[in-house]
Amino acid sequence: MKIYVVGLGPGGKDDMTIRAVRAIKNAEVVTGYTYYINLISDMLKGKEIFSSAMTKEVERCRKALQYALSGKTVAMVSSGDTGVYGMAGLIYEVCKDHPNVEIEVIPGVTAACSGAAVVGAPLTHDFAVISLSDLLTPWEVIEKRIRSAAAADFSICIYNPSSKKRADYLAKACGYILQYRSPDTPCAYVENIGRDGENYTICTLGELKDARTNMFTTVFIGSSRTKIINGKIVTQRGYRDI
Amino acid sequence: MKIYVVGLGPGGKDDMTIRAVRAIKNAEVVTGYTYYINLISDMLKGKEIFSSAMTKEVERCRKALQYALSGKTVAMVSSGDTGVYGMAGLIYEVCKDHPNVEIEVIPGVTAACSGAAVVGAPLTHDFAVISLSDLLTPWEVIEKRIRSAAAADFSICIYNPSSKKRADYLAKACGYILQYRSPDTPCAYVENIGRDGENYTICTLGELKDARTNMFTTVFIGSSRTKIINGKIVTQRGYRDI
Repeated sequence: MKIYVVGLGPGGKDDMTIRAVRAIKNAEVVTGYTYYINLISDMLKGKEIFSSAMTKEVERCRKALQYALSGKTVAMVSSGDTGVYGMAGLIYEVCKDHPNVEIEVIPGVTAACSGAAVVGAPLTHDFAVISLSDLLTPWEVIEKRIRSAAAADFSICIYNPSSKKRADYLAKACGYILQYRSPDTPCAYVENIGRDGENYTICTLGELKDARTNMFTTVFIGSSRTKIINGKIVTQRGYRDI
Repeated sequence: MKIYVVGLGPGGKDDMTIRAVRAIKNAEVVTGYTYYINLISDMLKGKEIFSSAMTKEVERCRKALQYALSGKTVAMVSSGDTGVYGMAGLIYEVCKDHPNVEIEVIPGVTAACSGAAVVGAPLTHDFAVISLSDLLTPWEVIEKRIRSAAAADFSICIYNPSSKKRADYLAKACGYILQYRSPDTPCAYVENIGRDGENYTICTLGELKDARTNMFTTVFIGSSRTKIINGKIVTQRGYRDI
């Protein structure tokens, strides 16, 4: 009775770890959001698959639990790392009355790290990771976190910067940060990391306010120690020059 | 003229991505801290190797640049993700006058993610990553970040919690956080992630204050939404119950 919770990394199979590949090979049942199942479809021959839409996470965890209780080895897959805004927490919650079901989280490369690698090295020193989705979190909590991270000179990585319903959230977030940081602060955003259509933009905080982003964009906001070097954004390791 | 900056993930080769394996295969010269070179020694046959001790990072980057300028493909390797307290930023700085040297950062699984997977799912919602090393950062900056992260209810992941010279730093950090959070807050720390001797402890914030940690320990401090489920620490995705 085992559930692997597998992070696939940013996109292509090349960004999976060897452990992640092996867990999927070991699994009899594989489940995930349809888009991610499709990304690894050629690894799934002979396996039972169930996929579902993005908002059905609790249902998917319950079904994974049912399969595990029936004696099957299950792999729940998602992009990035399942421990960062992913399913790892939810599966522990859903399985809490079944301590005999073994849960093994296989970590993956989260968008903070894979996106950072595309745009340079913005997170080489202390950083904060914040989602702008207020579906499950009151905006007041999000605002407080943005302001605190900005005031304490963290580099900031933003997940879910906007969606159709939340078109102005990134602009609002930039507005808060501009109260603490210069509009010249180096920033970047990247889309479709590791997938077809990967592209990134280096800009200033002042420009980021007007950037067009979507659910698949990851945003980086530099600290006072971030600069632009040869078209990439780079945060120095510390507060002393080399 | 190319330098790969390769994150190996937490420890064993199983945690490397397929891209990381390929970059090392492509490289003619491989460099890194001696300990990491040894971890992947069986991949290095026929390659030129130079390794050095932990404090020689700038020197190692300069040597990598020299090799690249001589036309060789170089892989700089280190554990975890090179973009998180790693060499990715430094190599951009050292190469800043050589824009013709191509730098490709290959992201890896950083200890925040690999450690989180061992102890449960502490970082499934907004989190801050803070190093307690004051070698390059004034302690006042570190203190401000710890207090800000604690006040804004981030989950917190701490790198470099202590060393022989900094034996009491984690206790000091916990002291600050206890001004904002209950001593019952679920916490965890993990050592030797993905390597021989991997072990972890789940505890409370009050207990963490007295924990014995070292340079290879990664520490997790829960938010107000973190609880213990079947011996693991788990942060809920948001502020609404499932």
